[in-house]
Amino acid sequence: MTSTVAILGSGAWGTAMAVLLADRCRAVLWCRSAQRMREIADRGENSTYLPGVPLPGSVELSDLVPPADLYLVAIPTQHIRSTLEGLKLDRSTAAVSLAKGIEISTLSRPSEILSRWFDRVSALSGPSMAPEVARGLPTSVVVAGADADRAQRILMGPSFRVYTSRDLIGVELGGALKNVITLAAGICDGLRLGDNAKASLITRGVVEMARFGASMGAEPQTFFGLAGIGDLITSCTSPLGRNLYVGRQIGEGRRLEEVLRGMVHVPEGVWTCRAVEELARKRSIEMPIAAEIFRILYEGKDPRAAIRDLMTRTPKAE
Amino acid sequence: MTSTVAILGSGAWGTAMAVLLADRCRAVLWCRSAQRMREIADRGENSTYLPGVPLPGSVELSDLVPPADLYLVAIPTQHIRSTLEGLKLDRSTAAVSLAKGIEISTLSRPSEILSRWFDRVSALSGPSMAPEVARGLPTSVVVAGADADRAQRILMGPSFRVYTSRDLIGVELGGALKNVITLAAGICDGLRLGDNAKASLITRGVVEMARFGASMGAEPQTFFGLAGIGDLITSCTSPLGRNLYVGRQIGEGRRLEEVLRGMVHVPEGVWTCRAVEELARKRSIEMPIAAEIFRILYEGKDPRAAIRDLMTRTPKAE
Repeated sequence: MTSTVAILGSGAWGTAMAVLLADRCRAVLWCRSAQRMREIADRGENSTYLPGVPLPGSVELSDLVPPADLYLVAIPTQHIRSTLEGLKLDRSTAAVSLAKGIEISTLSRPSEILSRWFDRVSALSGPSMAPEVARGLPTSVVVAGADADRAQRILMGPSFRVYTSRDLIGVELGGALKNVITLAAGICDGLRLGDNAKASLITRGVVEMARFGASMGAEPQTFFGLAGIGDLITSCTSPLGRNLYVGRQIGEGRRLEEVLRGMVHVPEGVWTCRAVEELARKRSIEMPIAAEIFRILYEGKDPRAAIRDLMTRTPKAE
Repeated sequence: MTSTVAILGSGAWGTAMAVLLADRCRAVLWCRSAQRMREIADRGENSTYLPGVPLPGSVELSDLVPPADLYLVAIPTQHIRSTLEGLKLDRSTAAVSLAKGIEISTLSRPSEILSRWFDRVSALSGPSMAPEVARGLPTSVVVAGADADRAQRILMGPSFRVYTSRDLIGVELGGALKNVITLAAGICDGLRLGDNAKASLITRGVVEMARFGASMGAEPQTFFGLAGIGDLITSCTSPLGRNLYVGRQIGEGRRLEEVLRGMVHVPEGVWTCRAVEELARKRSIEMPIAAEIFRILYEGKDPRAAIRDLMTRTPKAE
């Protein structure tokens, strides 16, 4: 029997999943407003968030959440709570978070937020730029948490490989932290420091991610897999990445508010950076890159000085 | 007292090191032939290998190897033996290999080749595209082996950070193996598979590198540092990379001989791939990516089929 997958959230990632799943599931794309739903239906595509990708006719649009075998929650981390509030949801349905971030008001991971509404929550992460997934380009992701096997069975397809992991915390923190390191990589690009410097920064970024993860209960090696370095490489090198874009603009001398003014919504790293800074401070975790990004974004530090401070602080044995 | 550094080899990397060291050492760039030396002297730059970078006046050119505090051996791996044969060299001078490869005729690492001529050999590796180093852009590398501390002291500068490592085998194999994985990443680019697929391939490539390294006596974690993933990221993403270029051309449907015909010399990965295939076969090391690259380059396998075979072979838990 065909599974029903309800995708909560009609941004780029939710829409891409609907397109991906259309040929093998009953895919229902939940839209927050009836107006939004009509727009997508009329144009046959989500022209705001995933322009140029036609929505297959078999994707159902709905402004009510239908009963389903799986919920995919594709809502930006900072908006999950306010979006789900007041919706009629079935607690016993397995929910998979597709969000990558940490909620700044509570310092919670997306799966922790979702556990208020669902008994069985897992998280999916990895290098998965939405437009590529929607176009059927080969993508590999990791899913961890309750019912990860079920999510794997339902979502796996020829162009979309789903691996399971036992490290829910690591999978989620990988996706959250990589956005912060990506901001740093973007700044490095904006300052025209070259590919040698950028690669060093990414390499040290993963070590920093793993250190943070370990102190939060994750397995360090998760950060050296798809949900860590894999995702980080894509977001630091793909021209599609929005965190990279923000970083680059800042490296070129623009201010955060100015950069964000031109964007549909705030890239996750801009929020997560604040949550990471707070958690690192509370728990005394050494996060030199994240700390400098925080100072650049929120304390007006000059990006060039911040990167120089990073480049010169390291100890002499690797 | 100022140190004398003799750089053996006037390719891109050797010339870049001469430019880098000119302001803090007596830097002598050894050229294989008097003619080559005159060419560089006349033009004030190495227009064959490092065009557009003026050679500082303080760099000395020589077709004899002078007495020195440090030799930097910047000769492509497959040519080290034939180049050093017959030169007058001081065995007791510390030698640092800058080569990244495995000699196919003997399956030796560069430092093993050099130990025939020198008592104290170390190796330097990491994300270090020569044109960026020559332009003074920030670069971080790792040096391991006998006298690594001395090499660090002499080579370290404001734009060139040198870390020491105790893992000579890992540092050398990282530099060798990354060229093979880079060929795969280039093929992925040439086939237009997207950044998600490329990042997955790189992520699995590092795991494969670490596995190979471990079975050769290296520390697996070295491959997750500058000399492994760091260098791999640069060579898989920088437009300056020659292994990436070869891979991309092959992904676009050209044959190896055809691609190499247009190049000044054969990128190291093309050789190392053969050495790795042989070592992996002899020692039964599972190297799926390297094996497919070998089949594409030397057995005429279709790149698209090879990548498909790679994408579908993986186990279900990461």
